[in-house]
Amino acid sequence: MTKPTATLLISCPDRKGLVALLANFIASHNGNIIHADHHTDFTAGLFLSRLEWQLDDGFDLKTEEITPAFSEIAKDLQANWQLHFSHKIRRIALWVSRQYHCLLDLIWRQRAKEIMGEIPLIISNHENLKPIAAQYGIDFEYIPITKDNKAIQEAQQLELLNKYNIDLVVLAKYMQILSQDFTIKFPNVINIHHSFLPAFVGANPYERAYERGVKIIGATAHYVTPDLDAGPIIEQDVVRVSHRDEVSDLVRKGKDLERVVLARAVRYHLQNRVLVYGNRTVVFA
Amino acid sequence: MTKPTATLLISCPDRKGLVALLANFIASHNGNIIHADHHTDFTAGLFLSRLEWQLDDGFDLKTEEITPAFSEIAKDLQANWQLHFSHKIRRIALWVSRQYHCLLDLIWRQRAKEIMGEIPLIISNHENLKPIAAQYGIDFEYIPITKDNKAIQEAQQLELLNKYNIDLVVLAKYMQILSQDFTIKFPNVINIHHSFLPAFVGANPYERAYERGVKIIGATAHYVTPDLDAGPIIEQDVVRVSHRDEVSDLVRKGKDLERVVLARAVRYHLQNRVLVYGNRTVVFA
Amino acid sequence: MTKPTATLLISCPDRKGLVALLANFIASHNGNIIHADHHTDFTAGLFLSRLEWQLDDGFDLKTEEITPAFSEIAKDLQANWQLHFSHKIRRIALWVSRQYHCLLDLIWRQRAKEIMGEIPLIISNHENLKPIAAQYGIDFEYIPITKDNKAIQEAQQLELLNKYNIDLVVLAKYMQILSQDFTIKFPNVINIHHSFLPAFVGANPYERAYERGVKIIGATAHYVTPDLDAGPIIEQDVVRVSHRDEVSDLVRKGKDLERVVLARAVRYHLQNRVLVYGNRTVVFA
Amino acid sequence: MTKPTATLLISCPDRKGLVALLANFIASHNGNIIHADHHTDFTAGLFLSRLEWQLDDGFDLKTEEITPAFSEIAKDLQANWQLHFSHKIRRIALWVSRQYHCLLDLIWRQRAKEIMGEIPLIISNHENLKPIAAQYGIDFEYIPITKDNKAIQEAQQLELLNKYNIDLVVLAKYMQILSQDFTIKFPNVINIHHSFLPAFVGANPYERAYERGVKIIGATAHYVTPDLDAGPIIEQDVVRVSHRDEVSDLVRKGKDLERVVLARAVRYHLQNRVLVYGNRTVVFA
Repeated sequence: MTKPTATLLISCPDRKGLVALLANFIASHNGNIIHADHHTDFTAGLFLSRLEWQLDDGFDLKTEEITPAFSEIAKDLQANWQLHFSHKIRRIALWVSRQYHCLLDLIWRQRAKEIMGEIPLIISNHENLKPIAAQYGIDFEYIPITKDNKAIQEAQQLELLNKYNIDLVVLAKYMQILSQDFTIKFPNVINIHHSFLPAFVGANPYERAYERGVKIIGATAHYVTPDLDAGPIIEQDVVRVSHRDEVSDLVRKGKDLERVVLARAVRYHLQNRVLVYGNRTVVFA
Repeated sequence: MTKPTATLLISCPDRKGLVALLANFIASHNGNIIHADHHTDFTAGLFLSRLEWQLDDGFDLKTEEITPAFSEIAKDLQANWQLHFSHKIRRIALWVSRQYHCLLDLIWRQRAKEIMGEIPLIISNHENLKPIAAQYGIDFEYIPITKDNKAIQEAQQLELLNKYNIDLVVLAKYMQILSQDFTIKFPNVINIHHSFLPAFVGANPYERAYERGVKIIGATAHYVTPDLDAGPIIEQDVVRVSHRDEVSDLVRKGKDLERVVLARAVRYHLQNRVLVYGNRTVVFA
Repeated sequence: MTKPTATLLISCPDRKGLVALLANFIASHNGNIIHADHHTDFTAGLFLSRLEWQLDDGFDLKTEEITPAFSEIAKDLQANWQLHFSHKIRRIALWVSRQYHCLLDLIWRQRAKEIMGEIPLIISNHENLKPIAAQYGIDFEYIPITKDNKAIQEAQQLELLNKYNIDLVVLAKYMQILSQDFTIKFPNVINIHHSFLPAFVGANPYERAYERGVKIIGATAHYVTPDLDAGPIIEQDVVRVSHRDEVSDLVRKGKDLERVVLARAVRYHLQNRVLVYGNRTVVFA
Repeated sequence: MTKPTATLLISCPDRKGLVALLANFIASHNGNIIHADHHTDFTAGLFLSRLEWQLDDGFDLKTEEITPAFSEIAKDLQANWQLHFSHKIRRIALWVSRQYHCLLDLIWRQRAKEIMGEIPLIISNHENLKPIAAQYGIDFEYIPITKDNKAIQEAQQLELLNKYNIDLVVLAKYMQILSQDFTIKFPNVINIHHSFLPAFVGANPYERAYERGVKIIGATAHYVTPDLDAGPIIEQDVVRVSHRDEVSDLVRKGKDLERVVLARAVRYHLQNRVLVYGNRTVVFA
């Protein structure tokens, strides 16, 4: 599907006729739906939906007309909603510390068009990955963090996100905690945590997994919220370990997990397949 | 969801407005959709959908009025479609040979209400499982099969299915091949094959998996068609094995797989989540 | 392998020549090793080993002579060790509350000889599973637990374990916490916890997994220690869930996990494949 | 473990005293075993073992003395055996066609020291990956293959393997079939096949997996033998797919599988953990 599409992500209180109402909006403008997926959370009394339709092939609203036209409907539904256009290429900043397996993996996938978006900026609190950025022609900003300078540095980071017009920050093994203030100002942040959350929240999960003697380790991609490692989970996966695996083996096995779990989460996000409500996600995969 | 619902499973050539058209049918009769899932197979040019809605809460068609009302619409769409009602309890015949792990597992799940349906009949080509049938108050028919009597015995089996008003036959380790004639006369048959199809079609898959030295074994639940082990796949799963596993270990590990894979497939089928087209399935899970 | 065997499980400080020393003990008595597996935990400086050899075919020590003969060697090694004989059938007590899926599963596997051992006793704090015990000819002891009578009831439970000559207690969904006192007096207790520990220690793990919005749930079989859900892990496994799964679905999917994870752990234990050291296990699978 | 070690891989007819005999050989020369794993294939009547011990710390044979010393023992056992030294760095040639995900992945892992060995040579039947070779300073040989020139080209390939002193060829998505003649002359070849063998032997496995409607796809790393895709399997893994996955999605998901499965197999091989016998492998993982 390389034709331009619009995607509506919407959640609202459940009631009769919602599928018809949404589908009619598109049909009435002669749109061709290529993906429609709905979910009802009966516990929360919420209807959640993702609709994707083609923007050519006769759809009779211009891009800039869709939002005003749909606003009317949405108001009535007391809905939370987002509208995305496939031809609007998202801009991603990758934040890293010293490790580069997730960084390189995401760059590769972006080059291989598995991940749709541009990567104009890498931010790091260390300098060692600068050569990788150079090699791929990506700007690299070194912003060291100490306990004392965090607020100042975050201000600078926000400025960079602004300057580069960044839509999404991916913490690709960025070993610093973002302040509550930052996460409020820039909420589109995906993190990879190297454990099967909520097991081993916080630092050194592999060491702690080894200590606990688990037989399976995991990785978790989630949106960042002010609560450490407690944001809405987008994707998780696991791999089996045994008594033969030392901490260094857990780290090595974990790296493969982190790469694929983070890549899947970023891909889902960029394809507008993730709908957050409360502290949960619906992933229309 | 214990309220009575109707479920529509439909496939038809793709065109604009289909989601709206189906949803409007239900909305126009004041129905409340509780599950709507759609899929477009662009290769085949097919739209496939599952819609489930409540029959009380104001839906203004009587059960017997739905089919005629929808027929009008369906004709226009050149659609294949089925309509199912949750209060119509399906009747299942379990066919077995000598092994009982899948048989007992399905009976359990039916008693635990994981599988919705009645099990009035067990058919076997051996007598050894008669006591299990007796224990659970299920009729047991012993129909031994030889090369020469197959046609006669299948006629008797069909008669029993008819007499017991059976909707679904589950081959729960029934080690006989059904004739083409039978599968045409009674198409609702789910089989569990003890391999990761299409690897190891036919007899003795565990022996052959051992011979081949695979590192993973599997099980496959599929609808039965005249071609051996080639029908539409509903569900598969796998488990890791190693050089330490002898054939008997593969059999033991495989039994656990067979139980869960078959149970999931039967459950999907009874919840009307499986749509067959060509030799493929859409499982609206 | 149905010939009688002896199995030695041993751990001791690592040093040169240990494999030779152990193998020579068996070879010098003309024994035939059928399974030898060793592991060195370099962090702990420990050598851990499992050796299984045939007791007939010329092994020249009588069963009762092995322990004294090996004691000499073990003393020198400062070893922890156990010796098990395959012809000594272990006696298992299953402890349950109201749920029966693990109970029935274990009984089945024992009948199918997947699990070697006898099950002479079921203990429950509820009465509802008495008919299952009766059906399989297993003694059933109803011991209701309240906050006030726990110590008294545990004394009675210990008496029963003693009377029935129980080697292993399996908490097959026994929803009570054992006192520290009990776990010291009877240490051979395996529990199945319905989460991927250490996530969701304690009560209601499925509810909490749903709340947290995890994409994978798990089950954990572990030895019981005084610390709640913190004992050495024997086996874990997981299954994927999605936003479509409500708590009741997690419970249903989890039941399948609990069954297989507990069964594997019990099987490993009864085959003397589990060596505990610190709070970790080596599973010589 | 960065200290130099020797590893013995051995298989021989099973008999009493083998573990002791092997361990004594090392102990009698004052060696320190750091890894000992044995397996008995009772069907084949074979004993298979892997022993790894330290070469310093007092082991009193020089490297060049070990083979002659052990030969005496091995002759008596009618054993197949190999001796490897950790300080002998293996030299790997990567063979590719147009796709580069496995190539880049292996280079990365080699740089990250997950895979021990040197990669001095890339051979391809296409020119498009030459820049990657250049970027990492690896020699690149372009050897186009046609039906008519295969024998000549294979001769040239063998010459290159010889010239570069190559120990192991890894077919990292090399889409050509090696001749029987080649596989006999150079047997150390690992291939990644993009299916769960033996399903979908030969060309276009993802297309055929899609056609068949499987619910799980896989990848298989195996040693190359004259029979297409039929050599001893080293490692396999799988990933779940659904009706939403088109062929291009299977390809994308498969790429992640291929990377990790091939990397694991290469790592096992280079760590001397793989013992081939008949058409099977023991992986002492």
